[in-house]
Amino acid sequence: MYTPEEIQTIVNQKIASIEFPAQPADLYLPIQYVLSLNGKRLRPILSLMSCNLFSDSIDHALEAAIGIEMFHNFTLLHDDIMDHADKRRGHPTVHRKWNENIAILSGDAMQIDAVRHLSQVPPELLPKILRRFLQTAMEVCEGQQMDMDFETLSNVSREDYLEMIRLKTAVLLAASLQIGAWLGGASDHDAGLLYRFGLLLGQAFQLQDDLLDVYGDVSVFGKNIGGDIAANKKTYLLITALNNANESQKELLFHWMATDSTHVLEKVKVITAIYDDLNIKTLCENEIASFHDQAFRALSGLSVPIERQQAIINYTTRLMKRQL
Amino acid sequence: MYTPEEIQTIVNQKIASIEFPAQPADLYLPIQYVLSLNGKRLRPILSLMSCNLFSDSIDHALEAAIGIEMFHNFTLLHDDIMDHADKRRGHPTVHRKWNENIAILSGDAMQIDAVRHLSQVPPELLPKILRRFLQTAMEVCEGQQMDMDFETLSNVSREDYLEMIRLKTAVLLAASLQIGAWLGGASDHDAGLLYRFGLLLGQAFQLQDDLLDVYGDVSVFGKNIGGDIAANKKTYLLITALNNANESQKELLFHWMATDSTHVLEKVKVITAIYDDLNIKTLCENEIASFHDQAFRALSGLSVPIERQQAIINYTTRLMKRQL
Repeated sequence: MYTPEEIQTIVNQKIASIEFPAQPADLYLPIQYVLSLNGKRLRPILSLMSCNLFSDSIDHALEAAIGIEMFHNFTLLHDDIMDHADKRRGHPTVHRKWNENIAILSGDAMQIDAVRHLSQVPPELLPKILRRFLQTAMEVCEGQQMDMDFETLSNVSREDYLEMIRLKTAVLLAASLQIGAWLGGASDHDAGLLYRFGLLLGQAFQLQDDLLDVYGDVSVFGKNIGGDIAANKKTYLLITALNNANESQKELLFHWMATDSTHVLEKVKVITAIYDDLNIKTLCENEIASFHDQAFRALSGLSVPIERQQAIINYTTRLMKRQL
Repeated sequence: MYTPEEIQTIVNQKIASIEFPAQPADLYLPIQYVLSLNGKRLRPILSLMSCNLFSDSIDHALEAAIGIEMFHNFTLLHDDIMDHADKRRGHPTVHRKWNENIAILSGDAMQIDAVRHLSQVPPELLPKILRRFLQTAMEVCEGQQMDMDFETLSNVSREDYLEMIRLKTAVLLAASLQIGAWLGGASDHDAGLLYRFGLLLGQAFQLQDDLLDVYGDVSVFGKNIGGDIAANKKTYLLITALNNANESQKELLFHWMATDSTHVLEKVKVITAIYDDLNIKTLCENEIASFHDQAFRALSGLSVPIERQQAIINYTTRLMKRQL
């Protein structure tokens, strides 16, 4: 079996080997640029590890894994336009480095190319895999729209928030695992369990991201602590705080959410103190643990020897443990 | 066999019957809005007429035809953002009626839904049809990028212009015809001839559009005469004029292209006069006639009785004759 590191190398080599047409340069260079920013390649790695659970060979699953990674990068490209983000992985975003029209159009082209890579699967699996991919892609758009809708809401329920991260983040991880499993020859039942594993794991990952923004180790997490607080982002922490706060805490939260960016350090400090008073860290950790446990329970139903599952269990556990 | 009007009714009824999820409203309402603006439905009509050449039943080709129409409407939605267009078919564009983020995201969702409709074809034809569709979709993006690149070029060659309209306009008409033919049971040879027919016809259509902008009957054409001239759009007419003009005519063209919008009527008058001096109308008409003749020559190779071809010949001839 392959290690995650070996798979990451295979994925990166494959991506680096993709040859795009030279012209029109402003269509294809941004795609190459985005793909060269060296993401974690989480989705293709999980997809190929899932394939590897059932099949010693993973070569035939590589194009689909690349298609999923390309789709993910397309969503980042367009999300960055919508968020007016200046940086992605430490580099200028496409709409800053080129311009907004180029970012829209090269994103559109990337989405097409994603489906093209994905559809290189064996013809007998194409209808099933394509259907899952397209449903997932639509759900990712729904999640992004919900996330944008949340910006203008004064409060959001826990259920709506979990539904948003299920759509925006979790379903693509779930589909990566399921598609990889199918390509490895898994039964629909086993592939369905891996979908469920990915869904629960994806939600746990996003909650952990929310938590690390406030309680992470800045030297490990690699982002500024309190970035979500500064941006008034409706995270699990803020939503839980707003739902659990008493009147004076709620007033204080809304007061600081309405301040401009000149008092950002104080804002992060005050809001973090409210989180501490409301025990938000523990509540979030409990939620993460619950998703995490349910995720691994899904794996226990697989018709695959536990020794073979160890690689994916270790890899995802390691991902969950980062910086906590 | 079906008449184009019958097919148009079938297409419009099918589009009107599509049920989108109610939520997130800002994702799905713009898609319904764009589809309700009653385009000419040229691509699905041609696709289904092409199917009907080979098969009395066209029902099984309807989903693919809807997918193509949806993809076309997606390109209009995103092109309108890039062009900062206020109106589309007399109604506010999505980015004006809602906002730019919603227009980007609902366009992305529309592209996904287009592939979903398209992939409802019989499984044995799916790989071939999907491959043609995805290649075409990428070419449409290339054409749009070339068109944007032309905006900042002082001059463009005839060859580059014809290549741009081949990509931006013609290939999707060609693919519509080819995919319809395949779904009707056509051989690859016949389907290839219909692709070629669509390609040449599409280029003729675009050249005719360029011509009508200046020499059309405003009461029939439905747009303001000279809109392309006012916007300095690199049309076949302007490109041919720039390539054929003497120094003083060239100077005059560049002078008027640099004027602001306050003198638009005079600008249209002066540039039209230069076109007249350079005999641009006849040159363009000859080019159209050449594409038109080549297109119909492609049809003559079809292994379909000429009586059966009459419907599509009459329909496309009628389209070519409008307002000329």
